[in-house]
This record gives sequence, structure tokens and C-alpha cells, in this order.
Amino acid sequence: MSKPGERFRPIWIDHQSDVVKVIDQRALPHELVIMDLNSVDQVIFAIKEMVVRGAPLIGVTGAYGIFVALKNGKDNADETYIKGEAGKIRKARPTAVNLSWGVKRTLSAVLSEKDPSRQIDIARQVAGEIAEEEVKNSRNIGQYGVKLIREIAREKPGKPVNILTHCNAGSLACIEFGTATAPIYAALEMGIDVHVWVDETRPLNQGARLTAWELGKYGVPHTVITDNAGGHLMQHHMVDMVIVGTDRSTYTGDVANKIGTYLKALAAKDNNIPFYVALPSSTFDWTIRDGVADIPIEVRDPDEVRYIPGAAKSRDNLLMPETSPAANYAFDVTPARLVTGFITERGVCKASETDVRRLFPEKV
Amino acid sequence: MSKPGERFRPIWIDHQSDVVKVIDQRALPHELVIMDLNSVDQVIFAIKEMVVRGAPLIGVTGAYGIFVALKNGKDNADETYIKGEAGKIRKARPTAVNLSWGVKRTLSAVLSEKDPSRQIDIARQVAGEIAEEEVKNSRNIGQYGVKLIREIAREKPGKPVNILTHCNAGSLACIEFGTATAPIYAALEMGIDVHVWVDETRPLNQGARLTAWELGKYGVPHTVITDNAGGHLMQHHMVDMVIVGTDRSTYTGDVANKIGTYLKALAAKDNNIPFYVALPSSTFDWTIRDGVADIPIEVRDPDEVRYIPGAAKSRDNLLMPETSPAANYAFDVTPARLVTGFITERGVCKASETDVRRLFPEKV
Repeated sequence: MSKPGERFRPIWIDHQSDVVKVIDQRALPHELVIMDLNSVDQVIFAIKEMVVRGAPLIGVTGAYGIFVALKNGKDNADETYIKGEAGKIRKARPTAVNLSWGVKRTLSAVLSEKDPSRQIDIARQVAGEIAEEEVKNSRNIGQYGVKLIREIAREKPGKPVNILTHCNAGSLACIEFGTATAPIYAALEMGIDVHVWVDETRPLNQGARLTAWELGKYGVPHTVITDNAGGHLMQHHMVDMVIVGTDRSTYTGDVANKIGTYLKALAAKDNNIPFYVALPSSTFDWTIRDGVADIPIEVRDPDEVRYIPGAAKSRDNLLMPETSPAANYAFDVTPARLVTGFITERGVCKASETDVRRLFPEKV
Repeated sequence: MSKPGERFRPIWIDHQSDVVKVIDQRALPHELVIMDLNSVDQVIFAIKEMVVRGAPLIGVTGAYGIFVALKNGKDNADETYIKGEAGKIRKARPTAVNLSWGVKRTLSAVLSEKDPSRQIDIARQVAGEIAEEEVKNSRNIGQYGVKLIREIAREKPGKPVNILTHCNAGSLACIEFGTATAPIYAALEMGIDVHVWVDETRPLNQGARLTAWELGKYGVPHTVITDNAGGHLMQHHMVDMVIVGTDRSTYTGDVANKIGTYLKALAAKDNNIPFYVALPSSTFDWTIRDGVADIPIEVRDPDEVRYIPGAAKSRDNLLMPETSPAANYAFDVTPARLVTGFITERGVCKASETDVRRLFPEKV
């Protein structure tokens, strides 16, 4: 991870110690801190407090959570215990559907193994498989998405393709390559001239802290902007396309993503700029039809808005009067009508039930 | 200014010393610092560095700048000198049309007085008149705007009217009452139950720092939100109306205001929520037809985005990687088609050339 240009992962198992390790994303961009996940409480803490974040990564962390539970449960890891631990992990955050999906898949595999001594190996293996599948998904998303970038590049020879993204749907949110960033990294590899507008993404600044960090690490030209700036840039032809990730998308095309995504989708629509959502199939919710009405939106601690991100809660770091309350809705839902298309591991499709079903016929 | 509940002004002349004094708005909300403006350089510094900000206040500060220039020029204050100083003040910031307007009006009055010994008194008087006119304008904006709030209140008895605002178009941006806040303060006086969603307004956080501060001071219930949150709130029927100020609006209805305003206007339109712009006639630009194309948008120091507002430029206060560049467009333009109406000192009208001309027939 230390060699410049080398690919890194935000979660891995240290094979010598058999310990799950994650990058503490709260400390980026100025420090690279590694945290061990030795207990289910630590797994839940890591997910809740956003040591790890991003839908695919939360899914993988949840899967490894089952492994950690089994490691700690040892001889007492009966079905009741492991189901209880799985339930706790699944509830750590409500919006990203991958968490529930990753936990469930690992749990099923473990419970179908009757020999308790083999369950821990199965958990380790399934969590690892999910991680590798997400890498493969990201790689495929990159290959399909880069075609869209290449088309734009052909229309403006000699000039960079300007892509706007919100939050971090990058390597740090996934395992490698990312979702929204995968087409960008693929474009870079193909020698296409790209430039990324990075929304800082208040309140936790995942854009300014994480996306800018990894784009810089991989040598992608980028500029950080406030969340307020995107509309102006679009009006003035300084954005060619928008690509974002998602924490949960309905099979009907509605997209839950970091709060503020909806505003960018509106601006893209108003300026005829394509607005794409990149996601692996693990992020689809195959049960909900109306995303705006039915996707649960996490409400987080208002102090994340009130204080400078990552700083001590002193008056010096308080961004508003001491007596002013704040609200902290973590996600919003962009209706399908504003989404130009989904970039998935199986190809690009319209954000509509018909098109999603056609790409994933086995899912519904 | 120290008594709670008492009205304050962000600019005034100390009559004993004849010195222009302003609240240093960079230090709010945690400290109330008063700054003297003793030279034209200090006036320009105050405007450029946003010691004072907000279109009407910048206009009044520019007017007092002519007074300061004359005080300092003393016996050498000939026409060439005073025109030169006026030119420097007018150029301090490009977007707010009030600055140019306030300087020009005071300059004309001064130059039409042939007796140099009387010019300084005229400058003091005209600047004071402009300030009082802005107070009167704000009061009238409040009286016209409150009718809109009252109508909504009648439709939801027993529940607060939720108003979203962006940046600070409050007392601090004007002289008293504000523009966007004037109808809110008037509603409070009439006993109408209101609640204000305050956009924090990155990068300089005028919402979180200034609007929250003055709403708190006047006892208006409010909640600070990130700039990303408004769309979600509107989708979920938590916003009844939007009221913002403006730094320059064309007589055709296009509205330049703090960056991010356009995104809120799009969200309001998408959710059928009325979007009003409150402004005195001094903020109209009577010469520009196409606001999006022709209103100059100030580009400010990227370090305002890169570092925590008001903090020292150390790595600890750097919000992104050291190698990541940032861009800092200060305003955007909301096209007339997204604006429900203008609230002016002469009444409410549509954001259209016909309606604006009808209200201000002498201007065009």
C-alpha cells in the first residue's frame, strides 16, 4: 500500500495473524491509519462510525463480521449466537442494502455447513469471495463505463472530458477500482484525457478527503469544489457528464446516494448533461418499487454538521452558534426520471424496471 | 448592540469620532469584533475580505467609502482624486451591483457640490440616506413578504411554516431586517409560527455563522443543514417556501446569488415549492437582459474552499490533500423561469420584464 501507484484495498485479511484489517477512512487524507477488527463490536463500530463506508465495502465488512463473530464465539458459536451477531451487524447502518446482503449471504453459507469446526473457514472464504466478486464487478463497470467517456472524448478532441462526482464511490468505497471511479480509472489507462470535479460532500467531506486522495494517488487530474458549485459549472458547459455511486437503488431506477446527489441530478437534467449511476448488482434492492417513499434514510448525529469534520468538539471547531440546532440526513433519493443510465457489471442500461430486469433476469 | 433582542446594524458612524464602524463578520458567530474604516484601503479590504458582505450592505459601505476618501484627501480632494478613489472602491467586488450603485450615487452628489468644504458633509449625508432607505426598503419587503407566509400559515393551522434560506440575506447583509429575513421577522412579530432551514452555505458558511446567529438573536426557531440537504427536505414536504436574497438581478428576472442558490431553485421547482427572491430596487441591474450569460461571477481564492473557514492555513485545517487544487466560484445565476416571484419594497411581482417594469416604471 505504501508504494506510490500501487493498488490498495480498504479491507483485507492479514494471513499471518488471520486478523481483518481496514483503513480507518476517518483519518484520511492526512494520515493512513490501519485498524484491526477483532470483535463484532469493533465491526459494528467501524461501520457505524464510518471507519469503513461505501456500499460495496460495507457489504464486504459485514461479511467479514460473520467471520469475526465465529472466531470470537469459538466453541459456543451455535446457530442462535451467530444469527444474533449477524442481526446486530446488519442493523449497524440502514440505507446501504449491501450490508444486509453481504451478511445474509455469508450467514447462509455458514449455516448450511453442519460441521461447526469448518464454519469459520467458510465464513472467511465467502467474505473473500464477495470481495473478489466486487473487484470483478468494479472492473466490469469500468470497462462498460469507459465507453461512455470515450464517446464524449471523441466529440471534443484535444480537450479533457470533465466528469463531476459526488461523495466517494471509489476504491475506498469498494475493494478496488470503485464504482463511479472505475470508468475514470479505465479512461486513464486508455490514455483518455479526463478531469474530475470532486464535490467536497458535506458534512463528512468524503469527496474532499477520500475521492481527492485516491484520484491524486492514481494520478487523475481533479479539482475539489463545494457542493454548491456543480450547477454553475453545468450551466457554463464545464461538466460533460456526472457519474455517482449509490447506496441502494431500486430495480425501478430510483437511486439512494449521499445527500445532495438529487440536486446534482436536477442540475444535470436542466442542462442536458448525462447523469450516470455506477453500481454492482449487490446494490440493487429487488423488493422496493418507490425509492423516494420507501428507502430508509439514515439520520445521523447533528454534531457531524455542527463541528468541523474529525475535529474535537470544542467551541473553536463549532461551525455555528452554540445554541443553533442542526439536522443531518445522510442520503437522498434521485428519482429514476433524472437518471440517464445505470453502469453495472453486466453493461449499461436505462434506469427503468424493464431495462434492469432485462440485464438481471434471474433476480426478479 | 449588546442588549439582547435589541436591533443592531452592521455599519454605522460613531458621531463623536466621525469614524465609520462595521461589525467584522468574519469573526461571527463566536466573537463580536468592531472594525474602524479609516482609509480607502481599509474600506476596500473590508469589502474584498468580506468583513462586510451582502448586496445592500456593500452598497452602503461603498457610499461611506466616498466619505472616508474625502476625510483623508482633505485639501487635496479634487475631482480627479475622488473619482480615482471611487473607481478603486467600485472594483473591490464584481458581482453585487449595489456597490457600484452606492458609490456612483454618493460620488454624483459630492461632485455636484462646488464648495469643497461642504463635500465631506454631503458624502456623510448621502451615505446615511442610502442606509436609511435600505432600512425602509427592508421594512417594506418584510410587510409585502409576510403576506405570502401568512397565506401558507392559514393552510396549515397549528403547524409552523418551514422556510428554507441560503447564505445570509439578513440584517447583517443589509442595514436592518434584511431582505430574505425581513418577511420572517415580520411573521415573528405577527405571531405566525415559523421555522427556518438554514443552509450552511459553503465555503464561507454565511448561513451557519451569520443567519443562524441573527435568527438566534431575534428568537426565530431554526435548524442548520448542509447545502446538500434541501432537496431531500423538499421531497419530503418539510419545506413550504424558499426565500433568498440576491447580489444582482436582471430586470428580466435572472437572479445572481450565492453559489448553490440555483440548485435550491431547481429542487423547489421539482417539488412545486414557491421560490421567492427578496430584494430592494438597488439590487436590480437595469442594463443586463441575460443574467446567466452576462452577470460577472466572482472567482475567489481557492484556499477559502481548501481550508476550514476562518482557521489558520495549517495542514491541520486543510480539508483535502495538500496536492489537490480547488475552485471557488462565489455566485451562480438562477434563471427567471425558476423564480416564483420577487419581493421588493414596492410589492411582490413575477420575475419577468413586464412585471418588474410595471413596478418600477421610472427605472427603464
